[in-house]
Amino acid sequence: MKQSQLFTKTLKDAPKDEKSLNAQLLIRAGFVDKLSSGVYTYLPLGLRVIKKIQNIVREEMNKIEGQEILMPSLTPKENWEISGRWVVEEMYKIINEDTGLGWTHEEIITPLIKKHILSHKDLPKYVYQIQTKFRNEPRAKSGLLRGREFIMKDLYSFHETQEDLDDYYEKVKQAYDNVYERCGIKELTYFALASGGKFSEKYSHEFQTITEAGEDVIYICNKCQAVFNKEVKEEKCSNCNSDDFTEKKSIEVGNIFRLNTRYSEPFELKTERGTTIIMGCYGLGISRLMGAIVEVLSDGKGMAWPKNVAPFQIHLIEITGGDEEIKQKTQEIYEILQNKNFEVLYDNRDEKTAGEKLNDSDLIGIPLRVVVSKKTLSENSVEVKSRNEKDACLIKITEITNYVEKFFQ
Amino acid sequence: MKQSQLFTKTLKDAPKDEKSLNAQLLIRAGFVDKLSSGVYTYLPLGLRVIKKIQNIVREEMNKIEGQEILMPSLTPKENWEISGRWVVEEMYKIINEDTGLGWTHEEIITPLIKKHILSHKDLPKYVYQIQTKFRNEPRAKSGLLRGREFIMKDLYSFHETQEDLDDYYEKVKQAYDNVYERCGIKELTYFALASGGKFSEKYSHEFQTITEAGEDVIYICNKCQAVFNKEVKEEKCSNCNSDDFTEKKSIEVGNIFRLNTRYSEPFELKTERGTTIIMGCYGLGISRLMGAIVEVLSDGKGMAWPKNVAPFQIHLIEITGGDEEIKQKTQEIYEILQNKNFEVLYDNRDEKTAGEKLNDSDLIGIPLRVVVSKKTLSENSVEVKSRNEKDACLIKITEITNYVEKFFQ
Repeated sequence: MKQSQLFTKTLKDAPKDEKSLNAQLLIRAGFVDKLSSGVYTYLPLGLRVIKKIQNIVREEMNKIEGQEILMPSLTPKENWEISGRWVVEEMYKIINEDTGLGWTHEEIITPLIKKHILSHKDLPKYVYQIQTKFRNEPRAKSGLLRGREFIMKDLYSFHETQEDLDDYYEKVKQAYDNVYERCGIKELTYFALASGGKFSEKYSHEFQTITEAGEDVIYICNKCQAVFNKEVKEEKCSNCNSDDFTEKKSIEVGNIFRLNTRYSEPFELKTERGTTIIMGCYGLGISRLMGAIVEVLSDGKGMAWPKNVAPFQIHLIEITGGDEEIKQKTQEIYEILQNKNFEVLYDNRDEKTAGEKLNDSDLIGIPLRVVVSKKTLSENSVEVKSRNEKDACLIKITEITNYVEKFFQ
Repeated sequence: MKQSQLFTKTLKDAPKDEKSLNAQLLIRAGFVDKLSSGVYTYLPLGLRVIKKIQNIVREEMNKIEGQEILMPSLTPKENWEISGRWVVEEMYKIINEDTGLGWTHEEIITPLIKKHILSHKDLPKYVYQIQTKFRNEPRAKSGLLRGREFIMKDLYSFHETQEDLDDYYEKVKQAYDNVYERCGIKELTYFALASGGKFSEKYSHEFQTITEAGEDVIYICNKCQAVFNKEVKEEKCSNCNSDDFTEKKSIEVGNIFRLNTRYSEPFELKTERGTTIIMGCYGLGISRLMGAIVEVLSDGKGMAWPKNVAPFQIHLIEITGGDEEIKQKTQEIYEILQNKNFEVLYDNRDEKTAGEKLNDSDLIGIPLRVVVSKKTLSENSVEVKSRNEKDACLIKITEITNYVEKFFQ
């Protein structure tokens, strides 16, 4: 895409009312726009990241036999009354209607499944959606980390036996690990024991990514590496009995729960043999993950997107000094790269200085920067630089395709 | 996909509270589930159709330089007060919040664009989203044709001159024609003059698809073929002066408006030269289009999806009579077709009779049916049948790939 066409602009300064790093950078770079506290528009660059994360999550859910559906946001009071959750503070309610906005979907999926699972032979089944959720959130001050409107993947599983749920629970854990790996934050993400909350078993598990911006605290056992959310941490490690922990601030980027019969009982979800069906639920915030990636993979100059979720792969920048020949040469390189199916953002803006273009490039954080200038062309070359490395180098124009293919291998 | 894995079931009878044909068929076939009046869950088969329509619309919008974004549904009262639309009946409002649910997005896109269009050189720009809309709809009795929660594409254009808007208006008209062509309903869809409503110029244009289920009425001039919505129809055709019209019931599947300065004025959206920016808006209901396709392309047996929007391309059905060899042979054919990247729904269900499988196939409406049975295998053949034709024929197994490739050319 040609950057002159992109309708968004980068901003020099962050908006004053945004305290969180992720929102500051995403707004300055033109990835999102803030409509109100915890409510953002995804602009073209930001929506490209959201779609890439969604596709990674979708692929991993499909691999573990998840079937994708899309449930509504307008949800009837009667469903929430069956589970006793009509009164929770998290739910936005519509004036003059017995309707609330879905902030989670156990109350919708359970009666839906009841219509379609007619026999124990239909089990197990795994159903997920990627959907916008609404949550009445008094503390929406962390940009994409805590939204009042946010995009989430929620998977629900249905089993006849506890063992079957336990088996699937492990598969989901692996699928989540794959997601964080592909999104470039695996090394900073821990699998932590957490409380079960009000609605499930005594314990659940969370995926926690270490960042100073996180609102959670985890304790990592220095002896056996077991990880505990502050809520459930005791004096001694429940795994190895050590009392030597490292404390870290972190953000929850996923959680998995054994719901057991918490919802199947009130909704009378049973097999034909009378067994109450056992459920699991597995959440992963798509927009929160985007925010977490920004928090942990940015530097003083801007963002640094991992290859699989970057809005574009290559930032091609022309520095023409008004020379039409340089423009023409860059256009040719743009076409070569596009013909090889690379995703290229081509900064062809005439009104920007070289310095402004390079600053914008660092801010936007596309993995590979390719600069074309009088100097590089004098050596039949372009200058290439990874966003994650300090130094740039020249490569011959004839070598570009090879270089780029290797870079993205 | 193997049909035994699909968690949804087909139903023999339509739900009694659904009067509309599209909802009856879509629910019976397991494409959607009704949560409440005008509010549906998209099940795996239905979501596949939605995604295909979305992709067609997205491709056509990108071709006319539309840039995709995603705006929020939680929208602040202050934006709606600037345009004077906080009080409209269409809007759901949240209890204890100065927030309404977006039923259209002029009030959000206009101030957003104001932040990014700094000069007349930035014009024109075209921005769209594909998003869930909410509309307080007292008469939500037409299935997907009129939802309280529905999926819509809305495109907005921004121009410095009226001529530029007029040029783009024509391009959008062509893009919409392409969408209806690719979705298989072009021949039944008319471009009609309609009233401008409360919010735009005297006239707008609608795309109206002829169906008895439609809530609109159009008049087609028998002399010059000009088409008029009932609202704007006069005694004599305003184009050719004839008074000879054909009256048809129809459903609006798209509309395009010249907003002119209706929103740019109150939001003070101007160029640096002081010119108030001229706007157009262009709506297309994704879920409504899905419902309209069902209304016009179904028969007494079920739905008949056009090739480009069908949930799967091929319905592969085994009739084994308990014979493992037939199952094995069908599995081989399934793999051959999948390796050629065809989308196949493989009815491998053991508990269903041949008659039940064939009835389900007609109901679901996948374009090409391929049946494998003892009889067909005795001639080294499979039976193929287009959903739109009455007669089936045998083709040799060795010829399947060729046949299918030709069918979908």
